[in-house]
Amino acid sequence: MKFKVKILGIDAGDKHIAVVNDEDAAELGAHSLDRISIQTKEKELISTMNTTKASVPKGFLGVFARVVSELSLKEGSDVEVSLAQPPTSLNAIKLKMKNHKMTYDDANLIVNDVVSGRLSEIEITSFVTTLNNFGLDIDETVSMAENMVGCGKCLDLKAPYIVDKHSIGGVPGDKTTLLVVPIIAACGVTIPKTSSRAITSAAGTADRAEVLMPVSLNLDDMRTVVKRTNGCIIWGGALDLSPADDIFIKSEHPLSIDPLMIPSIMSKKKAVGAQYLVIDIPTGQGAKMKTMEDAEMLAREMIEVGRRLGIKTQCAITFGEQPLGHAIGSGPEAREALEVIMRKKTVPDVYDKAKSVAAMILDMIGKDGPKLVDEVFKSGKVEEKLRQIIFEQGGDSQIKPEDIEYGKYGLDYHAEKSGNVLVIDNHQLASAARAAGSPKDHGAGIYLYKKMGEKVEKGEKLFTVYAEKPRKLKLAKEKLDESPALYLGEHRDMLLRKVIETTIMGKPAIIDR
Amino acid sequence: MKFKVKILGIDAGDKHIAVVNDEDAAELGAHSLDRISIQTKEKELISTMNTTKASVPKGFLGVFARVVSELSLKEGSDVEVSLAQPPTSLNAIKLKMKNHKMTYDDANLIVNDVVSGRLSEIEITSFVTTLNNFGLDIDETVSMAENMVGCGKCLDLKAPYIVDKHSIGGVPGDKTTLLVVPIIAACGVTIPKTSSRAITSAAGTADRAEVLMPVSLNLDDMRTVVKRTNGCIIWGGALDLSPADDIFIKSEHPLSIDPLMIPSIMSKKKAVGAQYLVIDIPTGQGAKMKTMEDAEMLAREMIEVGRRLGIKTQCAITFGEQPLGHAIGSGPEAREALEVIMRKKTVPDVYDKAKSVAAMILDMIGKDGPKLVDEVFKSGKVEEKLRQIIFEQGGDSQIKPEDIEYGKYGLDYHAEKSGNVLVIDNHQLASAARAAGSPKDHGAGIYLYKKMGEKVEKGEKLFTVYAEKPRKLKLAKEKLDESPALYLGEHRDMLLRKVIETTIMGKPAIIDR
Repeated sequence: MKFKVKILGIDAGDKHIAVVNDEDAAELGAHSLDRISIQTKEKELISTMNTTKASVPKGFLGVFARVVSELSLKEGSDVEVSLAQPPTSLNAIKLKMKNHKMTYDDANLIVNDVVSGRLSEIEITSFVTTLNNFGLDIDETVSMAENMVGCGKCLDLKAPYIVDKHSIGGVPGDKTTLLVVPIIAACGVTIPKTSSRAITSAAGTADRAEVLMPVSLNLDDMRTVVKRTNGCIIWGGALDLSPADDIFIKSEHPLSIDPLMIPSIMSKKKAVGAQYLVIDIPTGQGAKMKTMEDAEMLAREMIEVGRRLGIKTQCAITFGEQPLGHAIGSGPEAREALEVIMRKKTVPDVYDKAKSVAAMILDMIGKDGPKLVDEVFKSGKVEEKLRQIIFEQGGDSQIKPEDIEYGKYGLDYHAEKSGNVLVIDNHQLASAARAAGSPKDHGAGIYLYKKMGEKVEKGEKLFTVYAEKPRKLKLAKEKLDESPALYLGEHRDMLLRKVIETTIMGKPAIIDR
Repeated sequence: MKFKVKILGIDAGDKHIAVVNDEDAAELGAHSLDRISIQTKEKELISTMNTTKASVPKGFLGVFARVVSELSLKEGSDVEVSLAQPPTSLNAIKLKMKNHKMTYDDANLIVNDVVSGRLSEIEITSFVTTLNNFGLDIDETVSMAENMVGCGKCLDLKAPYIVDKHSIGGVPGDKTTLLVVPIIAACGVTIPKTSSRAITSAAGTADRAEVLMPVSLNLDDMRTVVKRTNGCIIWGGALDLSPADDIFIKSEHPLSIDPLMIPSIMSKKKAVGAQYLVIDIPTGQGAKMKTMEDAEMLAREMIEVGRRLGIKTQCAITFGEQPLGHAIGSGPEAREALEVIMRKKTVPDVYDKAKSVAAMILDMIGKDGPKLVDEVFKSGKVEEKLRQIIFEQGGDSQIKPEDIEYGKYGLDYHAEKSGNVLVIDNHQLASAARAAGSPKDHGAGIYLYKKMGEKVEKGEKLFTVYAEKPRKLKLAKEKLDESPALYLGEHRDMLLRKVIETTIMGKPAIIDR
């Protein structure tokens, strides 16, 4: 059927949406959310169709921004519209819905149709839900990872060793990467690190790093930084390393599910050319992996997937029951990392974890990791390397910790009784730091004075919440009023919870990668 | 955060959609597709948030039609917006995603949040996918059915017996309901029949009936028709009997899945007050149920769910491998039904099936079904009753079969060789009739001269496709060029298909209810 274009001026991101009148929809034999093919003389585009009673008159095709740009449409121009057939990949999805094994070809069809926009949001949501419900075996995981690499850009570096690290996340205050990258680079080894921003946590590595330097570089600039310094800390979001993943996450995030965690991680490591990889798996109550057994299962799978993708992979299972260091929030964390790197402050767990991970990487390529890490650290080469990376990424290489100021609105929390710190609630602290304004407000966050196992006297300061705006400090306080972040006592209470009636339980997991 | 309202003039049906600037989204801590709470002085509404770079300026909240109407918004008025928490029902959905049993309370939370718009399309899609992946046991089916009735309107009739029939569909040309309703009503028994329109088939019962009379009546008018005639044939879509179902189907249809088939059917039967119910389950190759075993399993489940809902239920497993009667398409089918009811034409399978179903219903309430059906039919009471229903629903009670004209563009298909009709492809005929314009064009459809088992000479006419527009006749021809609708031969070929390499297979099932 022929239509005249009506430009609606609405931007729904990368979604292809076109709107037709109810009567035209009936004439097309199409229902709301059906897929239509829009043809100009030059090009064809598959779009989702919405219907309307009145906003678009009969004979007109209302189009959203992305459709306008992809087809170079002009107001009033002619297009031919027909009902499009569901793509073949929908059959592949439906086989997986019957719990049949997904083949390499299935994964290929699905990933290609996701990236080219032929699969709708409903179909993609159904796919990620099905992956979540039935899980992926190793073959399926590898198939997805390979195809996710295949549809994205790659970083081609020439270097004797290209190494990488990754954390599955979940621990507030985890600034390990800010230390590991300059340590490794200072040892003369190439580490082209990409990282993500926070989705539901207080700060992602990209957020922390951004306090020190620009992180939104493109692939060419990233390559230059790595060539000059051996390392970088770049936000992966703009690099297009795994465009399929960027689309999957739009359906996964609202459901707080993460069925493609392993293919997502591994495809991005493959895309930067990593040959050696250490994955940090924080474990314990309040972390993503609750038990050693779960952590070990995940590690086995990561290592095998790595092997099949040609990445030598090892995993570090780390203690994840409390925040790392004292500082939580993009600014405070960047500041604490800088203080440790400059050897102005000793924060044992921060240095210990960074050293462990860096040493594992160096061990993998035949060096004496622990010795080398201590050497470069004590000699000041790590600080020098960090400043070099900051400079090459376009930041102020003379930055001092004091330049990163805490927000001027602060609220102290004191111990209401004496006792030992028995539990620290990671989720509460992350939520509070987030409510206070992190990661966007660099002055927002939490400084934790007491850690697990420490003895506290009544009235002693436990932590301070900082914010740049009074309104946000109030939001953080409201969050912390819901339930305490630190639990004090002489020993753990034996009764954990009474179950009195059947009820809905559990909060959704944090799915930041 | 405070926003000024910007009315976008876009209608996305019943979806709540609001659009904010990227910067405001970051300030809110919200991502595209997150749920936001929009508050005016009078009311609060939960909406899905889209983000935009430029279409909506900073400080403004762009709103779609439904948000405007629900909150009575004016251009430029003030609203307070905050990030909304996911509804509790999301946890219930996530438990089912872990294959835990869904409780009555879970179903209650989910259905209520679906109807009130608190669950987003992504969450609803994930839910129906999960139901499809894991299935529902009897308890879950009953819980969903009861809650789906609970959130909709009900028809309260006082009558000694209230009976109903339903077909799970899938057979082209199935005009059984057009006969069963007047048969039952002519026997003095109350049958408040609601039916659906075609989604992917050539015609639904509501489409067929609409050729004879208006079917979009409201609940009050439906009640009046039933009181005056004992029966009715009304389109269920406007009655709001199961608003949850109307929302679920928006996610199910694009995926061609139907996990809620039983709760959907049974909730609507419960809503009209049915006490006795016969469900027709067409079975065989080309039908929804392929084997007797599948059909019997479904029947067992329907009967048990009926028992728990207080509806005495029986099932008729019927032969579904070929179209019913000769006519396919809304107009041709209405015409054929009228001819049979007027005893102008004898179409054995049409009358046989209607009699079987009607007799089962009458047997259930202690009458001699087969005898009674023959009596009312031969006496002309069925025709009289049909005309009475047509009149009460606002149609022309004097309508003659010839008034329902075939489209003036026709294309005959002839036998290319002599032989027996071995297979008739239901899907091909339905698709062709649909391409020709059915159900919207009442002159569009197919007339089938030969049925399975009949002997055909080379050159004999097999069927004719009719359309009101040459363009649509061409579309139907293209459909039939893809693969033949009738297969002729002396006997069935033994080799069904060669599998030479692994490949994606299967076409999605038709999910019309």
